[in-house]
Amino acid sequence: MNAKRSATIGASMLTFCLCSQAVAQYVRLAELEIDPAQLDAFKAALTEGVQAAVRSEPGVLALYAVYEKDNPNRVRVFEMYTEAAAYATHLETAHFKKFRATTDNMVLSRNLLDAVPIVLGGKARSPGTSR
Amino acid sequence: MNAKRSATIGASMLTFCLCSQAVAQYVRLAELEIDPAQLDAFKAALTEGVQAAVRSEPGVLALYAVYEKDNPNRVRVFEMYTEAAAYATHLETAHFKKFRATTDNMVLSRNLLDAVPIVLGGKARSPGTSR
Repeated sequence: MNAKRSATIGASMLTFCLCSQAVAQYVRLAELEIDPAQLDAFKAALTEGVQAAVRSEPGVLALYAVYEKDNPNRVRVFEMYTEAAAYATHLETAHFKKFRATTDNMVLSRNLLDAVPIVLGGKARSPGTSR
Repeated sequence: MNAKRSATIGASMLTFCLCSQAVAQYVRLAELEIDPAQLDAFKAALTEGVQAAVRSEPGVLALYAVYEKDNPNRVRVFEMYTEAAAYATHLETAHFKKFRATTDNMVLSRNLLDAVPIVLGGKARSPGTSR
């Protein structure tokens, strides 16, 4: 793995953070349209899959899943990996395969894009879940 | 500000992190189509604006800017704020106004969306820039 590491001290009023952290080399964007009747079940499966991936896969830096406020059945996921190989590994995990099998009939359309970082500016944040 | 705080220890092979951190309450998505002839200048202005915002604004948790690999003049920004008021504050900063003035004639189209978090799963990461 050729990810860079850095050590730094976070500097906002709300943040104290001392980190040694890989830098995202590979970003994916997912745009999914979900069957409105199955939206709650989809969100539950997605949350379970995201938490398992972030917890257990060293190459998964972040999976940020949101829905469009004006179109709640349109879900977007911003995905950051240490490198392309980490994404390939992610697709082969048991939790990802379970997520895809569980949700396959909930997804009406799926647009998956490769993206290239311009600037990934963020304060350090804690692992885990926010709603 | 009603952002929650949490303290946690990051647990990947690549990460050691001890954080007290606000949780994103407000997410925005920006989709911009840039004049191809001005793409380099746009990226430079965007990088400068993102770095200033993350460094100086307590309410800006992350601004992740990427372009679509297959359409390099299509830029996406995933924006996380502590709360809606922090986004309003961001729009009034000198660095954001400079960015908008500098880039206004570089942007061919602009789609700005409110988004609602489903699950924001991430390992702790260091502030700063990744390319």
